[in-house]
Amino acid sequence: MNQSGPAGQHTVRRHNSALVLNTIATADGLSRASVAARTGLTKATVSSLVDRMITAGLVVDGGPEHRVGRGRRGTALSLSPTGPHGLGVEIGVDTLSCALVDLTGRVRVSWTLEVEPRGRTVEEGLSQVADLVGLAQAEAARLGVSVGGVGVAVPGLVESSTGLLRSAPNLGWRDVPLHTELRARTGVTDRPLLVGNEANLAGLAELWFGGREDRRDFVHVSGEIGIGAGLVVSGELFPGVRGFGGEIGHLSVDPAGPPCSCGGRGCLERLAGRAAVLAAAGVPAEPEGGGGDGMADLLGRLRDHDAAALTAVTDAGRWLGIAMADVINLVDIPTVVLGGTYARLEPWLRSTLLAELDRRVVSSGWAPIAVEPSVLGSRAAVQGAAGWVVRGILDDPEPFLVGPPT
Amino acid sequence: MNQSGPAGQHTVRRHNSALVLNTIATADGLSRASVAARTGLTKATVSSLVDRMITAGLVVDGGPEHRVGRGRRGTALSLSPTGPHGLGVEIGVDTLSCALVDLTGRVRVSWTLEVEPRGRTVEEGLSQVADLVGLAQAEAARLGVSVGGVGVAVPGLVESSTGLLRSAPNLGWRDVPLHTELRARTGVTDRPLLVGNEANLAGLAELWFGGREDRRDFVHVSGEIGIGAGLVVSGELFPGVRGFGGEIGHLSVDPAGPPCSCGGRGCLERLAGRAAVLAAAGVPAEPEGGGGDGMADLLGRLRDHDAAALTAVTDAGRWLGIAMADVINLVDIPTVVLGGTYARLEPWLRSTLLAELDRRVVSSGWAPIAVEPSVLGSRAAVQGAAGWVVRGILDDPEPFLVGPPT
Repeated sequence: MNQSGPAGQHTVRRHNSALVLNTIATADGLSRASVAARTGLTKATVSSLVDRMITAGLVVDGGPEHRVGRGRRGTALSLSPTGPHGLGVEIGVDTLSCALVDLTGRVRVSWTLEVEPRGRTVEEGLSQVADLVGLAQAEAARLGVSVGGVGVAVPGLVESSTGLLRSAPNLGWRDVPLHTELRARTGVTDRPLLVGNEANLAGLAELWFGGREDRRDFVHVSGEIGIGAGLVVSGELFPGVRGFGGEIGHLSVDPAGPPCSCGGRGCLERLAGRAAVLAAAGVPAEPEGGGGDGMADLLGRLRDHDAAALTAVTDAGRWLGIAMADVINLVDIPTVVLGGTYARLEPWLRSTLLAELDRRVVSSGWAPIAVEPSVLGSRAAVQGAAGWVVRGILDDPEPFLVGPPT
Repeated sequence: MNQSGPAGQHTVRRHNSALVLNTIATADGLSRASVAARTGLTKATVSSLVDRMITAGLVVDGGPEHRVGRGRRGTALSLSPTGPHGLGVEIGVDTLSCALVDLTGRVRVSWTLEVEPRGRTVEEGLSQVADLVGLAQAEAARLGVSVGGVGVAVPGLVESSTGLLRSAPNLGWRDVPLHTELRARTGVTDRPLLVGNEANLAGLAELWFGGREDRRDFVHVSGEIGIGAGLVVSGELFPGVRGFGGEIGHLSVDPAGPPCSCGGRGCLERLAGRAAVLAAAGVPAEPEGGGGDGMADLLGRLRDHDAAALTAVTDAGRWLGIAMADVINLVDIPTVVLGGTYARLEPWLRSTLLAELDRRVVSSGWAPIAVEPSVLGSRAAVQGAAGWVVRGILDDPEPFLVGPPT
């Protein structure tokens, strides 16, 4: 018997709402009775919560339960594809992207704008983001769905406690109060607005949408102009104590190597980032006539067995292997997922990468390491940003439930 | 009301025993009533558990409660200094150590034997360990205390699920079923026998016995002949997915550098391990006449401002700084604790280490990094091994409680 007062009851209700919604999310097509059996809640409590979720558009009651066995069948519950959507935005170095993702994880809208690489002032960048959020909100309205919150991925160090962007060297931005600024400029003030590091969100996207439910421990490498990592351990992101972890782009793979914009020398990003690979391969980073980022050109040369292109990419695989050996020696993780640009380059950089892992990881003799390309590629961060909002709704649906609790 | 059967009751009792004992451990001098108030258990349940803990010798009832305020005073409970002790053993590269630690964390016995570095066969090593455990058990009996279990620290990769030592390159041991072998050779079959990596256990010792209760996030560097790290996040060890993490000795700080026994090149251990530092300083690693490990000689030279010694140690600080910058860029942790040999060298290697952190850690501009010497030094691993047993008793005292539960 719950003896606590209103505050306690409220906490219990929030907990129960999340439990019921997550149960429906995990096993599509359960009846109210099956949800009660799985959660240990009474049928009356589950029915009341489910009714409120249906009214709020989070859940649909879609027909006979998909259940085997005897007894009267209930009706089958599932997450509503027309419920609140997560709106993800990614501020890339040379792109600006957004995605609308429904509660089931399906991507409804996915836009990418090519923008002038670098040189954007903070003012211009924030203004572009606000405009894109406005466009996406209009598109959501056209689709007849609401936006449950906005997640923003940035290629920089975000203080997790404040949403302050401390530093994004590849944008040239420092100490930007992104959370506050974007709240003001987008008008999103009554729903969550979340700001996070793009490599961390790409790692979460790989966890949520990568199609591998058995894969709970991996490091996802985002290889773009910058290089970052999202470390996922036991199905949870490990972002470091203050949120500044995963900066593998600045692991020193050649301490006496070329200077890096971060102040260090021989950082991975400087030797194996997209700009370094394109330069080594002799591919112009910004092709004449605009359009594309040089990657299509590089991939064409690789398929044509161009010697300079092959050397550039196998060298990148070697540097990446040295860095990933450090990561695995430090945190002992069984799987490396190659994301972003690296997902497309994987066939050519795989062998040198594996050779360095094999040589340098002290446990490689008996603890095998899998290297796999991401299926999401360069879309991972923006989907992770949108998914972060969706995950927030599933984990705390109470603010979205209308009508009095009964 | 607890409606569950015997299994459920047993689980609840184990949970409650641990809760009560940990409460007594955390705040010395509480009364039974105060323990009841802090845990939310009834006074009757607490009294019954405490009586069994007193009978079992885990707790003593030591006089009036240290409490401020009105009302009748209870009597003050505390962990018994004569309760079961943890016996820790460390198999070092050139030492064999043991320690007996009581429930309060006090070190009662601390022995170190110098042994022939390397070249011990597995058979010889295990036999020495068994003899030392026997000696320590006899000493415990002489002190009138029981041994609650044995923890063993080894300088190698231990599979956490099995207690199998996969590889200890500095001992030259591979695939030794340490857990099974030591159970058989020591006769410790009815109490816990735990096997773990020395750097991980040194990190835990720093957490438990380092005298800094506010320090919950740090990386502890064990600088001995090998170099390892124990990563502590939110007051818990992060040993990697399979227990093979923390191998910072094999971070590549100079990928084209000298070959390492692990198969890699330019590993930290090869450039900044004890042997490398002594060699660079011109100190014989094994002084003629035996005794000592060359460290006393090195420290003397440093105090005398010997140029070669100073260069050797400042260079080691630089390599260590490059490696620790990688660690912090990857896992974002605010404090580096220098342990083992490095604790003694800290005054001389501090400045080059800090310079590399400052230059290479991308968040160093606003997220300061503290570098501190360990107070435990080279005793950390063996104390951690003993503390592991003690922690196990505090977290699950039920097997030590005698008499029928009432």
